[in-house]
Amino acid sequence: MLGKTRDTLLTVEGKRMALILTNEDVEQVLTMKDCVSVVEEAFIDLGRGQGVNIPRTDVLIPSARSAGLTYYPKIMAGATRRSGVFALRINSDLWADATERMVRVSIESEAQNKFCALVLLYSIDTCELLAICHSGFIQRMRVGATGGIGAKYLARKDAATVGLIGSSWQAGAQLLALREVRNITQVKVYSPNRERRTSFAEEMSKILGVQVRPVDTARECVRNVDIVDLATSAREPVIDGKWLEEGVHVHCIQPMELDNETFLRSNVVVSNVRPFGSTGEYPYIQVFNMGEVSRERQNIPGTPHLSVNWDNTPGLSELILGQVEGRTADKQITLHLNNVGVGIQFAAVGAKVYELAKEKGVGKEIPREWLLQAVQG
Amino acid sequence: MLGKTRDTLLTVEGKRMALILTNEDVEQVLTMKDCVSVVEEAFIDLGRGQGVNIPRTDVLIPSARSAGLTYYPKIMAGATRRSGVFALRINSDLWADATERMVRVSIESEAQNKFCALVLLYSIDTCELLAICHSGFIQRMRVGATGGIGAKYLARKDAATVGLIGSSWQAGAQLLALREVRNITQVKVYSPNRERRTSFAEEMSKILGVQVRPVDTARECVRNVDIVDLATSAREPVIDGKWLEEGVHVHCIQPMELDNETFLRSNVVVSNVRPFGSTGEYPYIQVFNMGEVSRERQNIPGTPHLSVNWDNTPGLSELILGQVEGRTADKQITLHLNNVGVGIQFAAVGAKVYELAKEKGVGKEIPREWLLQAVQG
Repeated sequence: MLGKTRDTLLTVEGKRMALILTNEDVEQVLTMKDCVSVVEEAFIDLGRGQGVNIPRTDVLIPSARSAGLTYYPKIMAGATRRSGVFALRINSDLWADATERMVRVSIESEAQNKFCALVLLYSIDTCELLAICHSGFIQRMRVGATGGIGAKYLARKDAATVGLIGSSWQAGAQLLALREVRNITQVKVYSPNRERRTSFAEEMSKILGVQVRPVDTARECVRNVDIVDLATSAREPVIDGKWLEEGVHVHCIQPMELDNETFLRSNVVVSNVRPFGSTGEYPYIQVFNMGEVSRERQNIPGTPHLSVNWDNTPGLSELILGQVEGRTADKQITLHLNNVGVGIQFAAVGAKVYELAKEKGVGKEIPREWLLQAVQG
Repeated sequence: MLGKTRDTLLTVEGKRMALILTNEDVEQVLTMKDCVSVVEEAFIDLGRGQGVNIPRTDVLIPSARSAGLTYYPKIMAGATRRSGVFALRINSDLWADATERMVRVSIESEAQNKFCALVLLYSIDTCELLAICHSGFIQRMRVGATGGIGAKYLARKDAATVGLIGSSWQAGAQLLALREVRNITQVKVYSPNRERRTSFAEEMSKILGVQVRPVDTARECVRNVDIVDLATSAREPVIDGKWLEEGVHVHCIQPMELDNETFLRSNVVVSNVRPFGSTGEYPYIQVFNMGEVSRERQNIPGTPHLSVNWDNTPGLSELILGQVEGRTADKQITLHLNNVGVGIQFAAVGAKVYELAKEKGVGKEIPREWLLQAVQG
């Protein structure tokens, strides 16, 4: 993926710089078209043994700052040979445990930038730290793109209408990605806040150039559509599986948005990757919990209400490479659990961002020499 | 550990900066005395559930640059509440597979700084990325300090003489640390290169203010000493266990330096931490191997020649807290396997370095705002 950039790195003389790329920088260069393309390649590479993925690692540490605050970093990492990049995504968040579940607490900040989540991009050819990127926009795009790839391989070929639950920044990315893989002609959107879903619909109508219509209930939203897309932060089901119509493709960002009925009615269920071990009810994440934070209060998806056999849920790589069967009939219901971040997504998207940023001269520079040392330690 | 700095971080108005700390910066502020102290605290905290440690994660990726080159990043992470820091150490290395085992390949560099290994320090109170440090000097000091702590709890109280095998930068740190925990009066040093061991002895004599004497054989080096300290990069035994005398404390950086006899003759064997799982012959490290790199050619310690029951080897925390028995008689032989890096070491040492660097105005600054974003993604 580094293409020309890779050669340049190896041959150019003189001072080389590492980039710091803000969300604004990333937004300026990265299109959803490119993003869907490189993320799909990454899943193909992973399936072919040309990529490697490190399970998400969550760490829970009671903060000494005050009771009920938990420091909660998350690490994801992965690489593909094609991208030429090893990526490490590090979220650094505080969660307040005062309410029924933890919520993120912002860093006190003199400016509006209050969250610390970074993607480090290393060259697998030269070992250099190529760039330190804000994670936010990459995060939005890689989740969106992955939803799009699920739909590309699972939705009916003629799928054209979408019922979207959720009106967040992330929900918008889902629509951008679906448009890359299907000829989307109509979208309904529901979220509990009327004002928010209305302004979302207006904004997305303009961006997409297709009608995005706010509706008053989730039930109405998923009626008579080809794709049901759940993109909320809800921790309880947002639809009733009985509402699903034959032939629909369902996508969710986290399984907690689903009820059991949705699982039971789905003919095909695919996750992003196979679990890495049989270590619990949700074996996608390694958790190192120093304190007393209960599982329910963690942001770790728990799905005790769902009768899912995680060990038998294949990953996108297998679906794309035809190693598992996808949709085999128009009336089937398909389900994509876009439920856990995969390090290779950051490698693929990060490499593309880096390539484009170098091409276009975007980003702040710091001397590479600052990040290198004379000893191996 | 952040002490005053912690308060400052939380209350000061105006622009805040993240630090970039080079090895030279770290060397300028960090003493072995401080290092032994904070690393010991970290092991105590880990044992008391006030610290958390993420097993070392190794990733092997065949480089696309040329056949026989393997990109090999390593990740370690950990935190203690006392330090206030979550640390992430990332090595980014290329290894050449052309010889019988892999060796590190340097980054092409216009300067002498050719290696990329960094420690990221995050505040567990504010989530901020406090600093990005070169890893080299911290690495040297934390390994040295940990050897010293092992000797503090396992060597005879009157231990005063050392036989050191190895004359590297790391070997020197062992002596600095041993001096912090025992009244060292004499040191012998052996390494295969006569010139090197001679100049090492001269240099360390001056630094320590005690006689460091080069000797011609390993056999002679370990004769009639209280502490046998192995600090080499050898991948086969460098001493014969039959040479060990009653009452000696043995330290090694990696078990491959030892023969079976040393294990069999040791009354007490302690590692840095207990293994995290029963996943193989050396269950301290999680390995994600994308390619065809054989175990022998990896830098992952393999100990097929040693009859060690890793599951029954306690960690330093247990020893320090008295949860396992250490030396109970002067004539016993004790053995400390300082064999795997522990994330909390980087948190403890990193926090100390950060505190001192802030105090003394050391380091390059980059605006904290560059590393923060407005969204949570």
